[in-house]
Amino acid sequence: MNPIFSALQTSVFEVMSQLARETGAVNLGQGFPDDPGPEDVRRKAAEAVISGWNQYPPMMGLPELRHATAAHYKRWQGLDLDAETEIMVTSGATEAIAGALMALITPGDEVVLFEPMYDAYVPLVRRAGGIPKFVTLTPPAFGLTEAALAAAFSPKTRVVLFNNPLNPTATIFSDADLDLLADFCIRHDAVAICDEVWEHVVFDGRRHVPMLSRPGMRERTVKISSAGKIFSLTGWKVGLVMAAPPLMRVLAKAHQYITFTTPPNLQAAVAYGLGKDDSYFEGMRSDFQRSRDRFTEGLRGLGFSVLPSVGTYFLNVYIAPLGELDDVDFCRRLVMENGVAAIPVSAFYAQGAVKTVVRFCFAKRDATLDAALERLADRK
Amino acid sequence: MNPIFSALQTSVFEVMSQLARETGAVNLGQGFPDDPGPEDVRRKAAEAVISGWNQYPPMMGLPELRHATAAHYKRWQGLDLDAETEIMVTSGATEAIAGALMALITPGDEVVLFEPMYDAYVPLVRRAGGIPKFVTLTPPAFGLTEAALAAAFSPKTRVVLFNNPLNPTATIFSDADLDLLADFCIRHDAVAICDEVWEHVVFDGRRHVPMLSRPGMRERTVKISSAGKIFSLTGWKVGLVMAAPPLMRVLAKAHQYITFTTPPNLQAAVAYGLGKDDSYFEGMRSDFQRSRDRFTEGLRGLGFSVLPSVGTYFLNVYIAPLGELDDVDFCRRLVMENGVAAIPVSAFYAQGAVKTVVRFCFAKRDATLDAALERLADRK
Ligand SMILES: CSCCC(=O)C(=O)O
Ligand SMILES: CSCCC(=O)C(=O)O
Repeated sequence: MNPIFSALQTSVFEVMSQLARETGAVNLGQGFPDDPGPEDVRRKAAEAVISGWNQYPPMMGLPELRHATAAHYKRWQGLDLDAETEIMVTSGATEAIAGALMALITPGDEVVLFEPMYDAYVPLVRRAGGIPKFVTLTPPAFGLTEAALAAAFSPKTRVVLFNNPLNPTATIFSDADLDLLADFCIRHDAVAICDEVWEHVVFDGRRHVPMLSRPGMRERTVKISSAGKIFSLTGWKVGLVMAAPPLMRVLAKAHQYITFTTPPNLQAAVAYGLGKDDSYFEGMRSDFQRSRDRFTEGLRGLGFSVLPSVGTYFLNVYIAPLGELDDVDFCRRLVMENGVAAIPVSAFYAQGAVKTVVRFCFAKRDATLDAALERLADRK
Repeated sequence: MNPIFSALQTSVFEVMSQLARETGAVNLGQGFPDDPGPEDVRRKAAEAVISGWNQYPPMMGLPELRHATAAHYKRWQGLDLDAETEIMVTSGATEAIAGALMALITPGDEVVLFEPMYDAYVPLVRRAGGIPKFVTLTPPAFGLTEAALAAAFSPKTRVVLFNNPLNPTATIFSDADLDLLADFCIRHDAVAICDEVWEHVVFDGRRHVPMLSRPGMRERTVKISSAGKIFSLTGWKVGLVMAAPPLMRVLAKAHQYITFTTPPNLQAAVAYGLGKDDSYFEGMRSDFQRSRDRFTEGLRGLGFSVLPSVGTYFLNVYIAPLGELDDVDFCRRLVMENGVAAIPVSAFYAQGAVKTVVRFCFAKRDATLDAALERLADRK
């Protein structure tokens, strides 16, 4: 058995969701909305299952989805992407990340990662033969510094993998951050794998800036997104990958042997959805923003110290002011004793730097958030 | 860029399907039926998309699908599998194979493979750090010998990966073959990864015998199947993995970081489908068998030398009697000049042992098969 994989635990998201199912807790752990998702998009999928194609689609994805993706990112982010050679559909962003690491890393290569980060990154980097080098971001600002980048990059750096907007911090890298990072990538001839699944979930009038659009990065960026997050349908697992042809050719080889393809019925519905007009996306943003504000206010009313959230489904609280110094223990008690599931942010740190921050998912109906607040109010 | 993946070509299945789409050829290359698949199963999926759960299901798969899988294999193959600890749902059999190799191989381990084999196997083994050792099977019988196994197994063997029924040969390993192989696995403490996606597509009254059921193999077998092949819905990409808990625990770690999960709406429909009564499965088998017979007869009438097919969607022909000695060149001319796509069987050999066998997919409507035969009759 492989020692990297056999040493792993079940992901904290799964553990917490399972505990929530078993105990009837309000689940603000794993990031998914409890709304059913846009009805018209789901109706398109149902139609495609009934009267469309259910056999293998082209390995790179349905042509209509690849063209819709090109048009979507042209409109929203000003990107010029060729649907034939620069866009690929995968079975979720997770497959895209796993595949990109398998495709781009040669054993011994160094990979720069920013912690806190999604828990899949380190095992996937290590299983691909990469050596993780960490840039540690700390609350409240989770800011990037040139010194931290300089310490992480080396002549062996081949890849930098990061999430922007960043889960779990709910922060966004500034243009200056991106350009600083771009500068390091260019100087080290490294490829940026950019997990931008939260690009549409940004608040207070912000617009997402893709790394791919920064000077010098067009040929050295792999942009990854996900219909699951674009349409609040996290179970659909339709990932979108964008990269210049020389990178895409190799990414495609990983994809063709990891899953080969992705259900064509869901692809057809996502192709339709990407063409929805601005009001849909603005509406989604303002709905989530309202939930963020409602939950922030509620938590503050209960005496929680809430960190700012400018994107993603998440917000974080400090637990030290509550006299709590161990986020894992706190979350365990919260789910077992109070019936609210949350995620200890230490699970996102490879090196254990931060132990007093807890993440809540606010992408829920008002009634769900209010039920959670009520339970939190009863906390002894 | 990773040298293993960057050296790869686009899969022959994709190349041929693309050529067929571009040229309007009758596509008997890539293995998929041109029927739409069972309507009731598709209707269940449509219902689940509209009124069911579209967010993350449990990482191991929907409980209803895991229980349906246990019941299905109990009924069809006499297996006793625990739904909670021995069954996992993946995004197709391909993900299951990729994940099993990532989970079970440590770099330097040897992996026994049988050629001809599906083209994903060797790149996945190599990318996982494994060293492929080949057992070469040759037409017409594609039989296994103890001497060939003895030459391939070594003290470093950790895994044997094989497909049964076997694509592209359309043969089935006999009980004696399985027990011989089991004996090698047990003596070498190796795990058998059994890609049994064709288990329901067997003809002339045969029943599939899973390696998992052979003496001594219960604890050292990973059984992989696929709803795509069980229900003739190859685009759905719902894979089923079965293994004893100590293996499954590690396989689950690969899955949780490669795709994490699989669309719950399709899972719900597959759960329903697995409970269909025997007449559905017998009907599917006899439909495909009829197509096999129709196409075999047609090809024989045109002077082709057809090899026996006892399972899978495929049958093979010898091209040497036609004066053809290069299957790749023959298939290229067949698609470009005659408008029929087929697969050169040399693409399934890692060591180039066989160059005069061509594979056709007969899992098509009569009209499709007849159109192909007409075009083949016009061959100059
Ligand atoms: C795949 S489970 C994790 C979902 C998610 O993005 C999160 O909760 O951080
Ligand atoms: C994933 S494309 C290959 C489909 C298939 O099983 C075959 O044609 O052999």
